[in-house]
Amino acid sequence: MKLRNGYKIVFAGDSTTDADKRSTQDLLGNGYVRLIRNALTAFHPEMETFIVNSGISGNKSSDLLARWDADVSAHNPDIVFCMIGINDVWRHFDYLEDSSRWLSEDDYRANLKKMVEKSKGFYELVLLTPYYMESNRSDEMRLMTDRYSEIVRKTGAECKLHVIDTQARFDKYMKSRPGQSISWDRVHPGAVGSVLLADEILKFLES
Amino acid sequence: MKLRNGYKIVFAGDSTTDADKRSTQDLLGNGYVRLIRNALTAFHPEMETFIVNSGISGNKSSDLLARWDADVSAHNPDIVFCMIGINDVWRHFDYLEDSSRWLSEDDYRANLKKMVEKSKGFYELVLLTPYYMESNRSDEMRLMTDRYSEIVRKTGAECKLHVIDTQARFDKYMKSRPGQSISWDRVHPGAVGSVLLADEILKFLES
Amino acid sequence: MKLRNGYKIVFAGDSTTDADKRSTQDLLGNGYVRLIRNALTAFHPEMETFIVNSGISGNKSSDLLARWDADVSAHNPDIVFCMIGINDVWRHFDYLEDSSRWLSEDDYRANLKKMVEKSKGFYELVLLTPYYMESNRSDEMRLMTDRYSEIVRKTGAECKLHVIDTQARFDKYMKSRPGQSISWDRVHPGAVGSVLLADEILKFLES
Amino acid sequence: MKLRNGYKIVFAGDSTTDADKRSTQDLLGNGYVRLIRNALTAFHPEMETFIVNSGISGNKSSDLLARWDADVSAHNPDIVFCMIGINDVWRHFDYLEDSSRWLSEDDYRANLKKMVEKSKGFYELVLLTPYYMESNRSDEMRLMTDRYSEIVRKTGAECKLHVIDTQARFDKYMKSRPGQSISWDRVHPGAVGSVLLADEILKFLES
Amino acid sequence: MKLRNGYKIVFAGDSTTDADKRSTQDLLGNGYVRLIRNALTAFHPEMETFIVNSGISGNKSSDLLARWDADVSAHNPDIVFCMIGINDVWRHFDYLEDSSRWLSEDDYRANLKKMVEKSKGFYELVLLTPYYMESNRSDEMRLMTDRYSEIVRKTGAECKLHVIDTQARFDKYMKSRPGQSISWDRVHPGAVGSVLLADEILKFLES
Amino acid sequence: MKLRNGYKIVFAGDSTTDADKRSTQDLLGNGYVRLIRNALTAFHPEMETFIVNSGISGNKSSDLLARWDADVSAHNPDIVFCMIGINDVWRHFDYLEDSSRWLSEDDYRANLKKMVEKSKGFYELVLLTPYYMESNRSDEMRLMTDRYSEIVRKTGAECKLHVIDTQARFDKYMKSRPGQSISWDRVHPGAVGSVLLADEILKFLES
Amino acid sequence: MKLRNGYKIVFAGDSTTDADKRSTQDLLGNGYVRLIRNALTAFHPEMETFIVNSGISGNKSSDLLARWDADVSAHNPDIVFCMIGINDVWRHFDYLEDSSRWLSEDDYRANLKKMVEKSKGFYELVLLTPYYMESNRSDEMRLMTDRYSEIVRKTGAECKLHVIDTQARFDKYMKSRPGQSISWDRVHPGAVGSVLLADEILKFLES
Amino acid sequence: MKLRNGYKIVFAGDSTTDADKRSTQDLLGNGYVRLIRNALTAFHPEMETFIVNSGISGNKSSDLLARWDADVSAHNPDIVFCMIGINDVWRHFDYLEDSSRWLSEDDYRANLKKMVEKSKGFYELVLLTPYYMESNRSDEMRLMTDRYSEIVRKTGAECKLHVIDTQARFDKYMKSRPGQSISWDRVHPGAVGSVLLADEILKFLES
Repeated sequence: MKLRNGYKIVFAGDSTTDADKRSTQDLLGNGYVRLIRNALTAFHPEMETFIVNSGISGNKSSDLLARWDADVSAHNPDIVFCMIGINDVWRHFDYLEDSSRWLSEDDYRANLKKMVEKSKGFYELVLLTPYYMESNRSDEMRLMTDRYSEIVRKTGAECKLHVIDTQARFDKYMKSRPGQSISWDRVHPGAVGSVLLADEILKFLES
Repeated sequence: MKLRNGYKIVFAGDSTTDADKRSTQDLLGNGYVRLIRNALTAFHPEMETFIVNSGISGNKSSDLLARWDADVSAHNPDIVFCMIGINDVWRHFDYLEDSSRWLSEDDYRANLKKMVEKSKGFYELVLLTPYYMESNRSDEMRLMTDRYSEIVRKTGAECKLHVIDTQARFDKYMKSRPGQSISWDRVHPGAVGSVLLADEILKFLES
Repeated sequence: MKLRNGYKIVFAGDSTTDADKRSTQDLLGNGYVRLIRNALTAFHPEMETFIVNSGISGNKSSDLLARWDADVSAHNPDIVFCMIGINDVWRHFDYLEDSSRWLSEDDYRANLKKMVEKSKGFYELVLLTPYYMESNRSDEMRLMTDRYSEIVRKTGAECKLHVIDTQARFDKYMKSRPGQSISWDRVHPGAVGSVLLADEILKFLES
Repeated sequence: MKLRNGYKIVFAGDSTTDADKRSTQDLLGNGYVRLIRNALTAFHPEMETFIVNSGISGNKSSDLLARWDADVSAHNPDIVFCMIGINDVWRHFDYLEDSSRWLSEDDYRANLKKMVEKSKGFYELVLLTPYYMESNRSDEMRLMTDRYSEIVRKTGAECKLHVIDTQARFDKYMKSRPGQSISWDRVHPGAVGSVLLADEILKFLES
Repeated sequence: MKLRNGYKIVFAGDSTTDADKRSTQDLLGNGYVRLIRNALTAFHPEMETFIVNSGISGNKSSDLLARWDADVSAHNPDIVFCMIGINDVWRHFDYLEDSSRWLSEDDYRANLKKMVEKSKGFYELVLLTPYYMESNRSDEMRLMTDRYSEIVRKTGAECKLHVIDTQARFDKYMKSRPGQSISWDRVHPGAVGSVLLADEILKFLES
Repeated sequence: MKLRNGYKIVFAGDSTTDADKRSTQDLLGNGYVRLIRNALTAFHPEMETFIVNSGISGNKSSDLLARWDADVSAHNPDIVFCMIGINDVWRHFDYLEDSSRWLSEDDYRANLKKMVEKSKGFYELVLLTPYYMESNRSDEMRLMTDRYSEIVRKTGAECKLHVIDTQARFDKYMKSRPGQSISWDRVHPGAVGSVLLADEILKFLES
Repeated sequence: MKLRNGYKIVFAGDSTTDADKRSTQDLLGNGYVRLIRNALTAFHPEMETFIVNSGISGNKSSDLLARWDADVSAHNPDIVFCMIGINDVWRHFDYLEDSSRWLSEDDYRANLKKMVEKSKGFYELVLLTPYYMESNRSDEMRLMTDRYSEIVRKTGAECKLHVIDTQARFDKYMKSRPGQSISWDRVHPGAVGSVLLADEILKFLES
Repeated sequence: MKLRNGYKIVFAGDSTTDADKRSTQDLLGNGYVRLIRNALTAFHPEMETFIVNSGISGNKSSDLLARWDADVSAHNPDIVFCMIGINDVWRHFDYLEDSSRWLSEDDYRANLKKMVEKSKGFYELVLLTPYYMESNRSDEMRLMTDRYSEIVRKTGAECKLHVIDTQARFDKYMKSRPGQSISWDRVHPGAVGSVLLADEILKFLES
């Protein structure tokens, strides 16, 4: 099993990771990070593990990169899970920012590469694809998300990093129910989506 | 001009009409009904008109029908605008209700017909199609919404009622920007969608 | 697999089941019942199941029995999980009630029997033992809890009902960490204890 | 049409512009500026425009002048709408300030001139007259407001700036209803007055 | 001196009398009635007097008449001060009510007469004119208020009742400062107007 | 009349002057200072006067002296009313402070003298005696208050300053009603005591 | 020792007993009753005793008498402590009620007698004198309180009831510190006075 | 009697001493320190004593040592009561901190010694043992607490300091009722435990 006593795990990302962590006293948030923390304690009380939630709502890949040293590496982790990119995509569709601030696929690829470089030799980095809970694969925002996910997969392959395909897991769920049954905006994972994300990560940690 | 002094207008519908009306002292809500009220006063101060917001959040066509006598006809209106149906559709996708409570297209058509019958001879009824701010016309929920809109259009034609095609107006907007730029869930109209709805209705009233 | 489409599950009990359910809009509470709900939706989206949280904080076996018809049977369930008794025990130790209101082991056994009788022929009843997160088996309150758990086990055996031994699960956990690491009062399951309870119940449902 | 893609618009003024902007997350306030923002997005989604609300409650012309560089010019706008002066007038009547702090017509004219000079060559400046929702033209406060409006008109003519006569628009409204029907204090525009102001400005922008 | 030990005084009226009395534990409100209560206790501690605030915000003469028996006569007073009518006037100008609910001068005169009749033989009734803090006597709302005040004066003269001319007192004040310096809406008396009203009434009581 | 246009008045003291001034937007408090402000505006609108509340709750004479330059003289007043000393007395009885911090009569006299010196030649200083709403003149706290009041009277006489005998005014009131009818602690003036204090000061200002 | 296992104690009285009991979940209030409860549990854990707080703020002897059956006898107590009367006295001094509602010494004596009669043969009644934390024995309110205390003492002697002289205990305290050091109003016992009252009652119970 | 006029007492410790002191205006908290303060004033009004609550929730012996100079010695006390250590123990059981931060018995002994040294020659130091309200002496956490208490006793004996055995007092109580009847977590003393602690300390002070 990957997991071992004394293991330190950092989760880096955006609001799907953050999950309103500032409202929680232990700063773990109310999402998949907390589910993982509770499961590790319940199922492996014989091991002491350390968890840091380094997600910040609204972050794009450029925001995460800018704080990577202070918020990720500085924790001196054994392993880092990084799920970023959906806000790079989303801003093209919700117009929350001026178009001058949108990030291209090239920007995203470059940012991702820099995070990988910062990790090399210091800790294991696991990449998670972004996901969009839209089953229609010709939807414009799904198409763009798929292109960003492909960048994650390729970057993982090139750099020999493990990649968790979160989109695949949500696609499996969406064979039975629409993405709207999890989340109105199809991005924030809510209670059910967090179970899916935590399950994928726990399976990897316990493998 | 359709509008005349002493005119009484009722808006019947769901949350897109309701717009949190219980939080507002005059019970007009914070949506398109209020925009219409303000515009009528500002642009036609020489006329006294009366407006009732009869939208209730979460209503399906069956809920609106059940309260039609008390909440619509009882106001003795001159004209009624009715926009209903998106919740009939939505429940198939967000799983907020057990499947046993979902309404079919036949249910919807029958409910609509009964509202029309209750109006006949008493006041003018204007039907508004439901809408879904999804530009991909092969999206499952858009497809179902389109079928419900078609029921509205056919019912209007058969009964010789004026129909306002709200979907067409949103489709025009979506040529430039995605539906997500108006609303995360693509249903609640928000500030910008309310302007579009109010504009359509005002154009009809001032025609 | 036990679980099947359309399955209706009622959880009957005290505060460990209730988990502040009145503060939650869907009345599922914040404890193991919610974890089960989320897991069933996430892992079995192809099935529609129905869950009712019938726990009420502070209930002793007599309180639960008094409301069994209205709060359990009336839901017409397929299966009922019943975990009750820790308050029967606890009142002897925390003096929250006058001694005249304490329940004896005989009272407990009799109450349990009546619940079983009310269930026979209508729905499957699964009994869960109470538990006390105290590893010292000669502790007075643990001793009493163990006697009550034994009553559950015997009742289950006599009536051919499945029994989930929650104490055994917590005992396993307490081989690594003290009960206080889960809960200051060693009764309320908190985040970690709820994972253990949910896990036991899910294993049974998926078996 | 005046409006074009990438246009940046600043609204400078007092509380009629401010409209409690600090209570709104996007700092646009709840008045005519927001109505303009919503209308531009709804009716011109094909254009990206930028809007800044630089109104501050209680400002007199001297206050606005003092912050003009930082709050207006620093935004590097394409066009600026400036409506200021009613507080210069009002303080003579409500005694909120000592008489030593009242501003004369000469003060007002001088302040206005300096704002015009700061704008010249950098961005288009549109002047709006102040207004007082009092139909009686021999009312003391109306008389003073009219003199200040005349200063705006003359300054506009001398400097070849477009002037929007807000008083004229309110006078037209007051042919049908008294000013009190819009606002108890006859100054703050409220919901209906904001529609009138936004309509005047939109007509200019779309002309 | 009119005032004597055991005297019971009722103040009947609208919001100018009410002064948010429900927010005050002793139901005297925060206006002129409280000032009178405090002055009587401070300056005449040797006398015990009883005071009732029977003002209700928004009341027109018809509203006050409808509750006269229960809210005025039922207190079995020695003297009643009645100031009503400004809302009869105001509704013609602020459009808070539909025009069908406006009261005419004849309505007002008739309502006043009925109050007088109900008082005759039971207690002394003192009439106070309404007032409008507008110094311009050709203002439409001032003109209407003056006509209503004249009805009060005539009714007083006919029925041999003492009349307190509140408008005269405010007119004296307005020789030095505008009405806006007391109140933005020129109706609610605020801190300064309440001093003027209390002073007029105290002079009468102590005469 | 003492009062004249442009007059600036400072009220210096303790909680009886302060009257919770920080809870009031204009920092005038809810006590006699506000009553004076309202009366001056209502009865003398032709004059502009300026009022500063420089009372601070809990102040003893030493505290007031320490802030005299900043809080009194710095305002450049025409006249200053100073009522201080009851806290010098009270602390001997309520034990809110250690006995080492109690002030003696000599301390009080010396502090008072220094305030007088700071005023000489700059503005008129009017001294008000402290008061204690206890009619029993042999009560220990009344006796001590009387000795402090005598110090005020003597200081006034020596320095040729006007002295307002607030104790005399309260004694007159207490011929009819006990001090407890004004205030439970017999120190804070409440609504009725503030009327008495304001009346004494207004009589002097208008004399 | 008077106290024995199973003992039920009712405390009847006014605000000094009540001590804001409605703000406390167990309805024991924050005064001497709670101190007694805590002391009995801490010092006599081997005994189970029952305590009821039947004090109601503002009660005069007539109010307590009116609810004696329901609030005292109905609890079927072993012993009742009754401290009432200070409000009978106080209302003559604070003018919170009209003089017509004041109670005389005869009223007080009669009310007390009726309570005694209701108790006879059912439970032990212990009378506590009222007290006033005023050391000056010629103070008007102290004089009246002393007369009421004397009525308690005489009633106790006549009816052979134990009387606790609370005034004596406070007088002893006041040899060292004034009554104001306990309470601004010299009636409500506060933290220190509650210790004195509890101490007197505990000494009796443990005697 | 140990206690004498002018005595200054500091209570140093953790949450059992702190008792939420920041929520109390006088910073004495709601626990045994306040009970001592109230008892000293009530029973010894002839003496002036000074009390400081220097407890801080969550403190271990290392935390208290780090702030000893500033929070204990700096007050220049006559006597210091020090009760610390339960958090040193508790963290081994509740896992609120990583195991790397746990303190050993040697750490505890050393910290205690350093506090004693800092006191020598300056003020009397009284040591209180920690306690755990668990009657089962073979309970793991009770065993560890007993070892820490033994360190306190030995340190007291070696350094000739008075030691108060709080565990002995709680053990006596627990002969009649379980520790849970005082406190769910068996550590925080609550209302009843605070009475026991205050009683032990008062007996020493009055001895």
